[in-house]
Amino acid sequence: MIPTTTPTPIRCRLADGRELLFFDLPGHRSAPVPDRRPLRPDPHPPSQLRYDRTTGEWVIVAPARQDRTYKPPADRCPLCPGPTGQTSEIPAAAYDVVVFENRFASLSGAGDTALWEDTAGQPLSVPGRGRCEVVCFTSDHTGSFASLDRPHARLVVDVWRHRTRDLLSRTGIEQVFCFENRGEEIGVTLTHPHGQIYGYPFTTPRTAAMLRRAGAYRAAAGTNMFDDIVRDEVRDGTRVVARTDGFTAFVPYAARWPVEVHIYPNRFARNLSELDDTELDDFTELYRGVLRRLDRIYDAPLPYMAALHQYADTDAQRDGYFHAQVISTRRSAAKLKYLASSESVMGAFINDVSPESLAATLRRL
Amino acid sequence: MIPTTTPTPIRCRLADGRELLFFDLPGHRSAPVPDRRPLRPDPHPPSQLRYDRTTGEWVIVAPARQDRTYKPPADRCPLCPGPTGQTSEIPAAAYDVVVFENRFASLSGAGDTALWEDTAGQPLSVPGRGRCEVVCFTSDHTGSFASLDRPHARLVVDVWRHRTRDLLSRTGIEQVFCFENRGEEIGVTLTHPHGQIYGYPFTTPRTAAMLRRAGAYRAAAGTNMFDDIVRDEVRDGTRVVARTDGFTAFVPYAARWPVEVHIYPNRFARNLSELDDTELDDFTELYRGVLRRLDRIYDAPLPYMAALHQYADTDAQRDGYFHAQVISTRRSAAKLKYLASSESVMGAFINDVSPESLAATLRRL
Repeated sequence: MIPTTTPTPIRCRLADGRELLFFDLPGHRSAPVPDRRPLRPDPHPPSQLRYDRTTGEWVIVAPARQDRTYKPPADRCPLCPGPTGQTSEIPAAAYDVVVFENRFASLSGAGDTALWEDTAGQPLSVPGRGRCEVVCFTSDHTGSFASLDRPHARLVVDVWRHRTRDLLSRTGIEQVFCFENRGEEIGVTLTHPHGQIYGYPFTTPRTAAMLRRAGAYRAAAGTNMFDDIVRDEVRDGTRVVARTDGFTAFVPYAARWPVEVHIYPNRFARNLSELDDTELDDFTELYRGVLRRLDRIYDAPLPYMAALHQYADTDAQRDGYFHAQVISTRRSAAKLKYLASSESVMGAFINDVSPESLAATLRRL
Repeated sequence: MIPTTTPTPIRCRLADGRELLFFDLPGHRSAPVPDRRPLRPDPHPPSQLRYDRTTGEWVIVAPARQDRTYKPPADRCPLCPGPTGQTSEIPAAAYDVVVFENRFASLSGAGDTALWEDTAGQPLSVPGRGRCEVVCFTSDHTGSFASLDRPHARLVVDVWRHRTRDLLSRTGIEQVFCFENRGEEIGVTLTHPHGQIYGYPFTTPRTAAMLRRAGAYRAAAGTNMFDDIVRDEVRDGTRVVARTDGFTAFVPYAARWPVEVHIYPNRFARNLSELDDTELDDFTELYRGVLRRLDRIYDAPLPYMAALHQYADTDAQRDGYFHAQVISTRRSAAKLKYLASSESVMGAFINDVSPESLAATLRRL
């Protein structure tokens, strides 16, 4: 594998002590100014992780987030550049890609406490350690990931890679989750193009379920479950959306959502840091291409959740196979899919859209 | 246990062959007329169950449901009584409680095929057998479960009990799920007070997870996990909302939702059919009381999902403990909780409301 050059960020601190990182395109050099806002360190108690004994899953209880910024007017966007250091989370006249610690973090303070694993059947809570970061994709308030030019989109992918490597190396972080929620229909409260990164101090329920299945699969079949799924999807072909040398995008056989696309590398890798330069270019192009197709389904920006499944190079996660997952709740031009009782209470998904017809639509666009 | 009298319904068929059952209050006697609508048996292919190999969960793929009735005007409500037999799903001048097979069913044709269990690592689909029923709580278009009088609310509980017993006795139905989705915010497309019943041909993911945990708990502690949870909640008290001789309502320790209340019987029972007359009265009162409190949180009808966790009297489900779960996505008077990437992709819930403060609010109301 060819090692790629990781961009080196300019690091500073916001007025309340949170970290802020500027990642520049070649030839650019960000010039941060001091954050002059009268911010103090968060006065709220940290969040709690609570163990749900009925399912064996952790729930993050974070009442401090109730006060978070909610749909500010465009001229007070906290993600636009703030050249005076008084109006924005990003005190600079301009930027390419920026990462900072979320002011309304549901997880914070990673590194100082390992998760207490002893359950013994009692109600358990531990401090909500971990990391919540915001990634601003561009200083253009009205852009989107899909509208970034090629080097800029690649820079965002490099930033995800940088943050993944950094956070996975910290004590107490089990899983690094890079994602983008887009659209008011998904509950997004800031429209400026941005994503988030969670460094969870536990393995999330979905990841745990997939690793359990992959482990059982290896024990039975001797191979990697995800490898075989990608091979089967390529062989069948009816759900494949696009394929390059390095990556395959398809609608999964048992898609839960009216819009759902997964993107896998054609060879096994656990996370972005195991991909080389050519593969990262390839991934950037296919990922951006899928997002562009999605916006053409209804000739309008599609509300979506776009997420990276990444795994650590550990025994417990050895069979985890990197992939991106993009889903939308839009089930027609005028209607949304709601997660009602079957999904929200019982976890039983009902999908009104056939995966094969979605794939055919996306291939055409 | 004192056996209770199960109400005997009047059974008829709709024009397309679907079953329709009238349950009457004492002294009432429904008088159905023929369904004169030009309905034909559903021309769509049945739904499919698809096995998600990455999680080991079944997904219901039901494209025929895309055309289902969507927010009709009040004067064309299909759940209001239709005395002419030409305007409604319920051809009668009046009714108390009615059950009929859903016209846009995601599961249908229970009893003729057992679920094919052999996976062998291949993509699997089986016909979407099962049962989807609609339960009309009252002929009053503007009512709600909380506004039903005591005997009427009890009749609805008796109907759930009747349907649970009937459907659990059928071949191929593994789990009976009675629930109510209320409010446009939950995606409800018909405002007439009604609930639904799903007879699933598989054990739902959430139920499977709880049974797994309960089995492991019994192996370790020798007792029923849910029994111990109820005991611990009563002892702690800070999350208890209300308690009667027969039942306890509390906010769970690791609540996932900004509003979440669970109601357990104070003694072990698997489903409604194992409760006696006094207990059913008790449950009805406490359940209705909780729903009334919920509507007072914001002085407005709360959008909610209300659901019964029921288990069959089988070895696999022996530790399943009956309980009701009511949840809402409303996190403040003006804001909703959305399930974005952390919840929808990773299953990691973030709750912005402290369970103890919710319980204190509900106790006061």
